[in-house]
Amino acid sequence: MFTNTMPRYEILSEDAIEVLDRGWRRIVSEIGVQFAKAEALELFRANGQKVEDEVVFLDPEFVLEQVRKAPPEFDIHARNPANDVHIGGNQMVFGGVYGPPFVREGDERRDATMSDFRRLAMLAQSYPELDTAGGVICEPNDAPLDSRHLDMIFALQTLTDKIYMGNVVSAVNAADTIAMTAILFGGRDRIEERPATISLINCNSPLRWDERMLDAQLEYNRANQPVVLTPFILMGAMSPVTVPAALTQQLAEALTGISLAQLVRPGCPVVFGSFLSNIDMQSGSPCFGTPESAVGLLCTGQLARHFGLPFRTGGGLTSAQLPDAQAGYESLMTLLPTFLAGTNFVMHSAGWLEGGLVSGYEKFIIDVELLRMLRNEFTPLHFDEDTLAYSAHVEVGHGGHFLGAEHTLERFRDCFYRPLLSSSDNFDRWRRRGAKDTAARAGEIYRQVLDEYEPPPLDEAVRAELEEYVVRRRRELGD
Amino acid sequence: MFTNTMPRYEILSEDAIEVLDRGWRRIVSEIGVQFAKAEALELFRANGQKVEDEVVFLDPEFVLEQVRKAPPEFDIHARNPANDVHIGGNQMVFGGVYGPPFVREGDERRDATMSDFRRLAMLAQSYPELDTAGGVICEPNDAPLDSRHLDMIFALQTLTDKIYMGNVVSAVNAADTIAMTAILFGGRDRIEERPATISLINCNSPLRWDERMLDAQLEYNRANQPVVLTPFILMGAMSPVTVPAALTQQLAEALTGISLAQLVRPGCPVVFGSFLSNIDMQSGSPCFGTPESAVGLLCTGQLARHFGLPFRTGGGLTSAQLPDAQAGYESLMTLLPTFLAGTNFVMHSAGWLEGGLVSGYEKFIIDVELLRMLRNEFTPLHFDEDTLAYSAHVEVGHGGHFLGAEHTLERFRDCFYRPLLSSSDNFDRWRRRGAKDTAARAGEIYRQVLDEYEPPPLDEAVRAELEEYVVRRRRELGD
Repeated sequence: MFTNTMPRYEILSEDAIEVLDRGWRRIVSEIGVQFAKAEALELFRANGQKVEDEVVFLDPEFVLEQVRKAPPEFDIHARNPANDVHIGGNQMVFGGVYGPPFVREGDERRDATMSDFRRLAMLAQSYPELDTAGGVICEPNDAPLDSRHLDMIFALQTLTDKIYMGNVVSAVNAADTIAMTAILFGGRDRIEERPATISLINCNSPLRWDERMLDAQLEYNRANQPVVLTPFILMGAMSPVTVPAALTQQLAEALTGISLAQLVRPGCPVVFGSFLSNIDMQSGSPCFGTPESAVGLLCTGQLARHFGLPFRTGGGLTSAQLPDAQAGYESLMTLLPTFLAGTNFVMHSAGWLEGGLVSGYEKFIIDVELLRMLRNEFTPLHFDEDTLAYSAHVEVGHGGHFLGAEHTLERFRDCFYRPLLSSSDNFDRWRRRGAKDTAARAGEIYRQVLDEYEPPPLDEAVRAELEEYVVRRRRELGD
Repeated sequence: MFTNTMPRYEILSEDAIEVLDRGWRRIVSEIGVQFAKAEALELFRANGQKVEDEVVFLDPEFVLEQVRKAPPEFDIHARNPANDVHIGGNQMVFGGVYGPPFVREGDERRDATMSDFRRLAMLAQSYPELDTAGGVICEPNDAPLDSRHLDMIFALQTLTDKIYMGNVVSAVNAADTIAMTAILFGGRDRIEERPATISLINCNSPLRWDERMLDAQLEYNRANQPVVLTPFILMGAMSPVTVPAALTQQLAEALTGISLAQLVRPGCPVVFGSFLSNIDMQSGSPCFGTPESAVGLLCTGQLARHFGLPFRTGGGLTSAQLPDAQAGYESLMTLLPTFLAGTNFVMHSAGWLEGGLVSGYEKFIIDVELLRMLRNEFTPLHFDEDTLAYSAHVEVGHGGHFLGAEHTLERFRDCFYRPLLSSSDNFDRWRRRGAKDTAARAGEIYRQVLDEYEPPPLDEAVRAELEEYVVRRRRELGD
C-alpha cells in the first residue's frame, strides 16, 4: 500500500463537472439502466423506482441518497495483518493483471496453466509493491472449468498472505470464495465484520448489468465483501467516441450499480470502478496506454472524489505483443496518470501484455520497476537546512565534485532510487555483461525470484480445512 | 510548436519556494559564482559587485534587477515563417537530441558521421512534432574538427527550414553561426531585431561558468540571439545528493548567468535552463529518466515561472543502451512531466539513447510517437451537448454497440489518436505481418521517411553565399 500525499492533477473545471453531472442524471432518468436480474429489479421497484421490463428509470436524487450510504473509505484484511490494506483517501492499493488466457515467457506465448497461475501468484507475493496478486492473474486452462475457481482461491490463499480478489463467474463461485475466506479468517461473522476479499463486477456497457455478474455481486454485498463496480468501456464500441460521453456513461453505470449494492446491504463497501480505453476505429482492436485513456483516468479520479467514493482505474496497460519499447511507454502512459490521479485500487498493475490477453512474466518485472519508480517520484521532498546542503557547497566550492563531500558520504547508500531492472551500465560494461536488453534482464530477475520463493507460513489445520473444502466442492460440482 | 493550455502540475509549496529562495541568495552572496572570463568579471565589478580572483559575490537584489530585464517571452524566426516559434507562456518548442558522438541504427552502434548528421536533420524536418533539429544532433566525427561547425550549420540551414541552434564551442564558432544566420536572414541588423537562432550555454556546475562557453555566450548576447543558460547537474557529482540542494544551486547558477547576459545587452532573450538528473552512487554512471529528475523537472518549471522566465528542461532521456522497454519507459518518465510542467524549450526530445552518447534512429521515431501522444493528451476536452452524445445513447440503448451509431460515423476518422508506431494488431495479424517488435517497426518508418524526404526550397543566391562562406572560412581555419 502506498500513501500518495502529492497533489492530485485535476483537469476538469467546475463547469465541466456540472455538464457531466447533468449528463448522468438525464441518462439514468430518461434512458434508464438495464439490470438483468429479477431480485435487483424488485429492490428498485420496492424502493420507488420505475421499472419497465428489465430497465430501471432512476431518480437521480434517489441514486445520490444510496451513494451516500457507501463508506468513503474501508479496510480489507489480509491473513498477514502487515498486508492489510485501506481503500480510499490517499491510499493506493496495487494488484496484478487480471484475466489473461495466455502467458508469455521469453519467446514463448502459450495457453496459461495452473502452474503459471501459481508462479505468477508467487511473484506477486515476492514484491511489496503489489498488495495483492489480484484474482485471475491468468486463466488456468488446464484446470477443470467448473471448479478451477477453487484452485485459484486456494492458490491465492496459500501462496500469498496478501488480500485476494474473489471469483465472479457465478453466484456459486462467489459463495465458494466467501466460504473459503470464512475458513481462512475464522468464520463468516468475522469476515462480515472485517472484509477480507474484494471482487470485480463489470458492467456490460452500455447501461446493462448482466445476470451472472449481478448474481456474484449480490452474494458479495450480502457478505459485506467489497465490490468494484466497473463500467467496462472501450470507447467507440461500448460508448460514444468522446471522453466526455464515456465519463457521463461511466457515472450512470457506476452510480446505479453502487445504488443496487446499497439497497442490498446499506453501508456495504464499494469502489467506483473504471476501465476506460478506446478501440482502433480502423481495425476495431482495443487500444491501451492511449492519450484518451490517460485523460479519462484523470477525470475519473476527480469525479469519484466529487461523489466521495474510493475509485479504481489505471494499471500498466498496453496493446504491445512483446515486452518492448511500446510496452514500456504505453504502460507508463497509464501508470503515471494513475499516480497523478491518486487511484485507490489499481488492478492490472503488473504483468499485463497484448491488450490483457497475455500475462507476461518479463512484463511483470518491468511493471514492478515502474511501480517502484513512481512510489519514489510521488514521495514528497523535504526542504530544510539538511537537504539544502549548504555545507557541502562550502566544502566543494566552484567547479569541484561532490562525490567525496561529507554530506554525500552520509547519504550515498539510499539518496537515489536504485533500479531493480533498469541499466545505466556504460556500453563496454553492458557488452561484457552479455548485451542483454531489458526483457532479457527481466527474465533473469523473475526466474531468480521464483527460485528463492518461500511460501508464507499457514496454520496446518486451516490449510487442511481449505483442502477438504476444495476436494468436497470439486466433487459436488462434478469435476 | 505546441500550445499547452492544460493545468500545470505544481508540487512546491509557498514555504518550499521561500526556502529555495533563501538558499540561492546565500550561495551567490556568500560562496559566490566563478566566471572564468575577464570581460565578465569586469562587467560585474563595474556594476558594483564584489569580485575576488574569478569569483563574483553577488547582491541577490542586483541579480533580481538584472533578471527582470530579461523578456518573459520572445520569438525566434525560421526561414519558413510557418516554423517561427514563440518561447515562453503556454508554448512548448521541441528539438532533437544534442551532442551524441555515436549513432545506433538497428544492431549497429558506430561513430556518428556528417552523413548521420544530415539524415537526422532530415528526419527532424519531416516531423511537425519537432520545431528544430536542434544543434549538434550528432557529432560528425568524419568532418574536420575546426570547421565542422560550418558544415553543421549549413546542413541545418539547408536541409531544414526550421529554427536551429548555434555552435558554442568557441567565440569563433558563435561568430560563424551569427554570420551564416545573417546571410540566411538578410543581414545582422535584421537578426538582431528578429532573433533567428538559439544556443545552449552550459554551466560547469557547481558554480563555475567556463571561459569558452562564456566567449560564445557573449557573442550571442551581443547579437541579441537567445541563449539557454543551463546548470548541468548530475546530482551526486555536480551537486549535493538531494533535489532541494540541486534546485537551489540551479537557481544560483542560472540566475547569475542570466544576470551576466543582461549586463552585456539589457533585454536580450534568455532561457532559464535545467539539465538535472543523478548519478548511480555505486558505479558513478549518469542515470536518466529517474524519479529524481522527474521531480526536479516539475519543481524547475514552477521556479522559472516564479521568476517570470521562460525555461528549458526535460526531453526523452534514458540510460538504455537499446530502444527497448527501458528506453520506452524512461523517456516517458521525463517527457510526460515535461508536459505537466509546460516546459517552454525542450531539447533532446527525439533520438536520445544511452545517456546521450548515442543518437538512435529507431529511438527518434519512438520519441516522435511519444510527442504525438502527449500533444493529444494535453489538448483540453470540450464539454457540450455534442461531445456528451446523448443522441447516441438513445440510438444504441442497453448492451448494444456504438460502431454504427450516427454520432460515431460522423467522427470515426479522427476521434481518437492514431499511432505512428504503436501496434494494436491482434496476435495472428501481428505474426502475419512479421512479428516485428517496436524497434523493428520504427526502423521501417524512418527508412521510408528518409526515402521520401525532399529538401525545403531555398533561394539559390542565398545558398551560394552560404556555400562561399563555408569554403572561405574553412580555408581560413586551416582545415
